[in-house]
Amino acid sequence: METLGLAVATPAGAENFELPRGSGGGKSVVILGAGIAGLVSAYELRRAGYDVTVLEARDRVAGRVWTIRGGDAVEQMGRPLQRAAFDEGLYFNAGAARLPSTHRCILGYAHRLGVPLEVWVNSNRNVPWDFAGKVQPERRMVNDIRGHVGELLAKAIDKHALDQEMPKDELAAFRQFLAAYSQLNGEGRYQTGGSSGYSVDGGGYNQVPQPVPPLSLKELLPNQAITLPYIFEHIHEMQATMLQPVGGMDRIAHALYEQVKPSVRLSSPITAIRRTGDRVRIEHGPGTQATEADYCVCTIPMNLLARLPNDFSPAKKAAFRAVNYFQPIKVAFESPRFWETDDHIYGGLGWTDRITETIMYPSSGIGSPKGVLVASYVLAFTRPDNPQAFSALSHEQRFQACRESVEASHPGKSHLLAKGVTVDWRLTRWSEGVTPNWPGGPFAPADRGAAYAELLKPEGPIVFAGEHLSYQGAWQEGAALSAHEALKLVASISAERKAA
Amino acid sequence: METLGLAVATPAGAENFELPRGSGGGKSVVILGAGIAGLVSAYELRRAGYDVTVLEARDRVAGRVWTIRGGDAVEQMGRPLQRAAFDEGLYFNAGAARLPSTHRCILGYAHRLGVPLEVWVNSNRNVPWDFAGKVQPERRMVNDIRGHVGELLAKAIDKHALDQEMPKDELAAFRQFLAAYSQLNGEGRYQTGGSSGYSVDGGGYNQVPQPVPPLSLKELLPNQAITLPYIFEHIHEMQATMLQPVGGMDRIAHALYEQVKPSVRLSSPITAIRRTGDRVRIEHGPGTQATEADYCVCTIPMNLLARLPNDFSPAKKAAFRAVNYFQPIKVAFESPRFWETDDHIYGGLGWTDRITETIMYPSSGIGSPKGVLVASYVLAFTRPDNPQAFSALSHEQRFQACRESVEASHPGKSHLLAKGVTVDWRLTRWSEGVTPNWPGGPFAPADRGAAYAELLKPEGPIVFAGEHLSYQGAWQEGAALSAHEALKLVASISAERKAA
Repeated sequence: METLGLAVATPAGAENFELPRGSGGGKSVVILGAGIAGLVSAYELRRAGYDVTVLEARDRVAGRVWTIRGGDAVEQMGRPLQRAAFDEGLYFNAGAARLPSTHRCILGYAHRLGVPLEVWVNSNRNVPWDFAGKVQPERRMVNDIRGHVGELLAKAIDKHALDQEMPKDELAAFRQFLAAYSQLNGEGRYQTGGSSGYSVDGGGYNQVPQPVPPLSLKELLPNQAITLPYIFEHIHEMQATMLQPVGGMDRIAHALYEQVKPSVRLSSPITAIRRTGDRVRIEHGPGTQATEADYCVCTIPMNLLARLPNDFSPAKKAAFRAVNYFQPIKVAFESPRFWETDDHIYGGLGWTDRITETIMYPSSGIGSPKGVLVASYVLAFTRPDNPQAFSALSHEQRFQACRESVEASHPGKSHLLAKGVTVDWRLTRWSEGVTPNWPGGPFAPADRGAAYAELLKPEGPIVFAGEHLSYQGAWQEGAALSAHEALKLVASISAERKAA
Repeated sequence: METLGLAVATPAGAENFELPRGSGGGKSVVILGAGIAGLVSAYELRRAGYDVTVLEARDRVAGRVWTIRGGDAVEQMGRPLQRAAFDEGLYFNAGAARLPSTHRCILGYAHRLGVPLEVWVNSNRNVPWDFAGKVQPERRMVNDIRGHVGELLAKAIDKHALDQEMPKDELAAFRQFLAAYSQLNGEGRYQTGGSSGYSVDGGGYNQVPQPVPPLSLKELLPNQAITLPYIFEHIHEMQATMLQPVGGMDRIAHALYEQVKPSVRLSSPITAIRRTGDRVRIEHGPGTQATEADYCVCTIPMNLLARLPNDFSPAKKAAFRAVNYFQPIKVAFESPRFWETDDHIYGGLGWTDRITETIMYPSSGIGSPKGVLVASYVLAFTRPDNPQAFSALSHEQRFQACRESVEASHPGKSHLLAKGVTVDWRLTRWSEGVTPNWPGGPFAPADRGAAYAELLKPEGPIVFAGEHLSYQGAWQEGAALSAHEALKLVASISAERKAA
């Protein structure tokens, strides 16, 4: 491909992606889906001189980057229709919720299109952890566990159990470091010194701070459910600094949409994907329509492709069916910001082994009177019976479970939660899930097997894109990067045809 | 004091502090200094009906909460005058730089006075650590050290060196947790899996992420200077979520100033503190003036009080001289935000064992074209020869040292640093330091000895306030809380006099 002038840099320069200007030469491309992969495809193909049509089933763009505002209808298949009633300026990011600062491709689009960003707080030492019926601030849990780990290791070193591991002077230097790292006293015992919090805060004059005593290992590890909360902040994609667009996660998608609006047809669900000669013929709504094009970029999730009438090969059809999708659930409420005014919590994720699993405190609008609290984000983070168990609850039962969780962490406050909205991605039409559960998970460098390899191959004039075809699964970054790869294939096929 | 109606809640309710309404009864109070302690005192005393005069040496309020903007003169004693030339909207917080979200008292004033807040990023896994001549991202250092600690501990456990420490089943559960916590494989070996970063990021299609290999313990601990960077984020007052006022750290002081402006006399340096009967007589500028009052709240730092002519007792005079002050130094430049656009760094502290010690990346104005980079913050964080060594450099030498540090972490970018400004608190008139080095440090619950106890005692009509008289030393919170304590004393003395 280099010889065709199509050598486009991989992620290190992904923010500078560009197809050769004019290379489209008026060839037509139909793009299936106006999520990030579809919008990025449309933006780049238009820049290169292709004639672009985007067909989108929904009456909005952005797909799973769904920001719900007051007045929005929230449809869940087989459930009563909800209508969000949030005050002006408030919103609920029902899908994508954050941007790692390492995601240079999607941040590059935000930068180029002037989308303002602000910090998203993932880790906050003030948030409550509610496990085995006990609520503790995160600060106490994470600092005490580091203390105990260090104390145990110091004991082993002091007993000479690790003398064989490194030269004596290195071991001595490491043992000295360990004392600082884990707050060990002269006897090698962990002692809290403020990192884990105070029972009495330091104040003016004689108000001496009183550090809380250490929790025992048993209290720190009451069950296995608590494992993920300890390591979550260390996951590469979850590490500070995290970002978010000002005004809602869908702002980058909307900025792209502004650039490609004339090409986008909303409320146009695909009903069949057909080949006709070396072209494609897409049957779609509203009503009974068809759009033909020289090429097709298909961003429809595999779970939906699997049951869409099509002319694909048996190998592709088998690939569509190969992997199950994750189906998370969220619940949001509007509320006065009691978590800020009373508990000094500004952003962050609270964890629990209740059926509600997580509380997401808002990082935006700090200090304003009201905010949207995501009182539950469920994905089997802490509960192996989820998301099925939570999904089985009625909306009112989910709201009640959230109120109980919030009440446990914020006594006397759960009555302030109002205007509940819940989104279960299993029940969300045109998605029915958020990302495929590839072997090894959405990010790991594991071999994803034959189905993945099959989907990377074009089928005639049709190429595939979407977060599912990336090693940044479930992220906008993955959707954008997969689109770049798909577009390189389109350009390559186009160049081959020209040469033929 | 409870019987006098003066029982004011200590920190748990410090945001609700209020002297009894009307309790001032027109009595006069002169406040020395218009930093946070002085402004909070003025605000609360005026609310209670006192007749308040604030005398401030500088031509501005906010004291060590000094936000420098374009056009501001930056005087350093014995050095050439600097004038900041930053573009409109940019600023350099030369003193106070951040607010812990646990500082409910100062945040209470911000909330009450409508000062908008935004997130300040202290910890960012993307920032560079530059030690022993090698630059690594923080993510690699902190995650690899946790990996090695866990691997060593797992070895000790697997060798049965810790069998006596806890019951067998507890140890087994802990060992299992440790594997997740420190990313250990089935053989108990630490293996990076993305937490420490990738040499190739995960991308679209076949771009499989390549985790960087682990660094050795020797590489992770090249010298003792690196100890603080590993533990800094665990210090209670430095833990996420940190906040800052939108528009500069001095915004809370200015909001207080707006409330008390008629009481404040700027450019009025104190020249003597005198007693006259049971009242005070303050001699001050401009020119030769004197202000008498029933009471005095003295917020002048001890190092300056020590040489101010006064009528204090020998015990007080001795107390003023008891403790040395920390004297940090900062250097700031205006620059295009190459750290964001090229290195994806949004806020956070970069660390180095160079003489410049720290880089503070701005957390505000994300995505805007230019920002103020604090390219050095020096306080013996990593260099025992500081701040003296850095203080001894000329301004141009400091700028050059900063450029070398920035060049090491951001090759090819240091030429973008412009409009350098440096503030050495030792050379800053009316401060000459930022906080006393009490036994145990500014926060620790250590016994601070006789000098501290002496300063908590009123001397006749004079009471003392300031961050130095709190267990939140160097913080605005400590200044505000100490003011509350001082005001309770004023109210108490006033009530006693009335009763007499």
